[in-house]
Amino acid sequence: MVHANQPIGVFDSGIGGLTVLRELRQALPDEHLIYVGDLARSPYGSKSPETVKRYASQITRYLLSRNVKMIIVACNTASATAGELVRQLAAPVPVLEVVAQGVEAALDAVAVLGAKEARVGILGTVTTVTSGIYPAMIRILAAGRKMAVPLMLQKACPLFVPLAEEGIWEGDLADRIAAYYLGEMKDFHPHLVILGCTHYPLLRGAIAGALPPGTSLIESAPAVVQTAGRILEETGLKAPQTNGAVTEYYVSDSVDTFCRNAGRILDTTLDLVHHIDLDACEDGEE
Amino acid sequence: MVHANQPIGVFDSGIGGLTVLRELRQALPDEHLIYVGDLARSPYGSKSPETVKRYASQITRYLLSRNVKMIIVACNTASATAGELVRQLAAPVPVLEVVAQGVEAALDAVAVLGAKEARVGILGTVTTVTSGIYPAMIRILAAGRKMAVPLMLQKACPLFVPLAEEGIWEGDLADRIAAYYLGEMKDFHPHLVILGCTHYPLLRGAIAGALPPGTSLIESAPAVVQTAGRILEETGLKAPQTNGAVTEYYVSDSVDTFCRNAGRILDTTLDLVHHIDLDACEDGEE
Repeated sequence: MVHANQPIGVFDSGIGGLTVLRELRQALPDEHLIYVGDLARSPYGSKSPETVKRYASQITRYLLSRNVKMIIVACNTASATAGELVRQLAAPVPVLEVVAQGVEAALDAVAVLGAKEARVGILGTVTTVTSGIYPAMIRILAAGRKMAVPLMLQKACPLFVPLAEEGIWEGDLADRIAAYYLGEMKDFHPHLVILGCTHYPLLRGAIAGALPPGTSLIESAPAVVQTAGRILEETGLKAPQTNGAVTEYYVSDSVDTFCRNAGRILDTTLDLVHHIDLDACEDGEE
Repeated sequence: MVHANQPIGVFDSGIGGLTVLRELRQALPDEHLIYVGDLARSPYGSKSPETVKRYASQITRYLLSRNVKMIIVACNTASATAGELVRQLAAPVPVLEVVAQGVEAALDAVAVLGAKEARVGILGTVTTVTSGIYPAMIRILAAGRKMAVPLMLQKACPLFVPLAEEGIWEGDLADRIAAYYLGEMKDFHPHLVILGCTHYPLLRGAIAGALPPGTSLIESAPAVVQTAGRILEETGLKAPQTNGAVTEYYVSDSVDTFCRNAGRILDTTLDLVHHIDLDACEDGEE
């Protein structure tokens, strides 16, 4: 019933998820991708779980109407608040989300460390940090691996998303804003810090500069891509090599603004960018 | 048909419009006010004119369904892109919006200056600045007053809104972000600078510190309140003094978050805060 030629759906509140899409395209160049960026209602990170759930389920309904073979939630806030809901709505279509994948990557890094008591920092939006999803998932997955639960410190960094969206990825102001948020984290002397928002890899240099030298920064994109590839292989749903690898973009706000900002992340011209009215994707209306 | 006891509707994308509401309540304590804050989709300032128009017309339809006697658009981005649309939808209900009122206040200040060639700076969101509404309206209203058109310089300051929403209203980081945006404005040596976003008065100190000493900062709230009072007097629609001066708040995202943040601006407890689903206020559905 499911065919290898069906598309993979990827979504985010805005452009942050493109940091995941970029790696997906490189690793799985034959896959037909559909990216949804909810720019008309971004950012999600300061909004309530109820509101983010409503938005995420509208997008999920749209992607299911497009007959996707897999959904990737490329937004940590949506993963944290609506990951389970998306999974329920999409079943039996598999759902990958950035929080679980980021935690797996972090625990891999902890295992390599071999430290007796690992110290793990977590950076995210207000809504992600408040949800407590990272500490909870680290505890669960560490138990599953029979690893000691690391010491953890969370920090919400609300200005990082507007800073990244504004294109200020490095320089004095980015450094100062990073230093503003990361003082306590620096004193925590973390072995590794999870970049718990898909925008944050854009600020990697500034974040690294505000932390002790040698702190590993963990992002979820490589783990997401690796897991997606494995699932597609295992289920025989990897797109055949002859498939034209189209990426379609659907954005809920101005197509022009999206193209301008997305171009900086993807470093390519975007051909198939369409406007989408997500409010029309309510229950029973798709 | 219209009664003095009917409420006044005030709206903004989030909490910025509360800087206008605060002055309204002080100056017109007997008026029943209905404030709508579209937090589920804020900020408006980076969104396209089409999207902001859609949101503003949903809110206008809601306020009209509440039988308001006047609408105040307390958001510069909505004023800049949707002011005319709100006016058309609301007619014959009078609409006041912050852009025209801010320009009148600025021209009053220019007239007092008596400078041969006044220099006026304009700060706003990307969408407001891109709309060109301030320079256009300054030209029109200056012509109406037979005044010389001032020299003008606009600057979009996208990080000001998240900074204000994050509660960082003063201190080193606010000063540095102000300095980041206002270097060219400082060199322009403006006589006065229009705070063309209802969030910006919260950052007044940081903005003033980044400009030459003595630069006047013009905000629209006092002019809005004065004009509203005058219209109500002239039309006999001022609320009678015996009226219980209730203020109701309707927010499209979490009531708790709104109360927490709004409390800092209004310095009072908010009793009547309700959630509202603005998507349900589409054409013909109210």
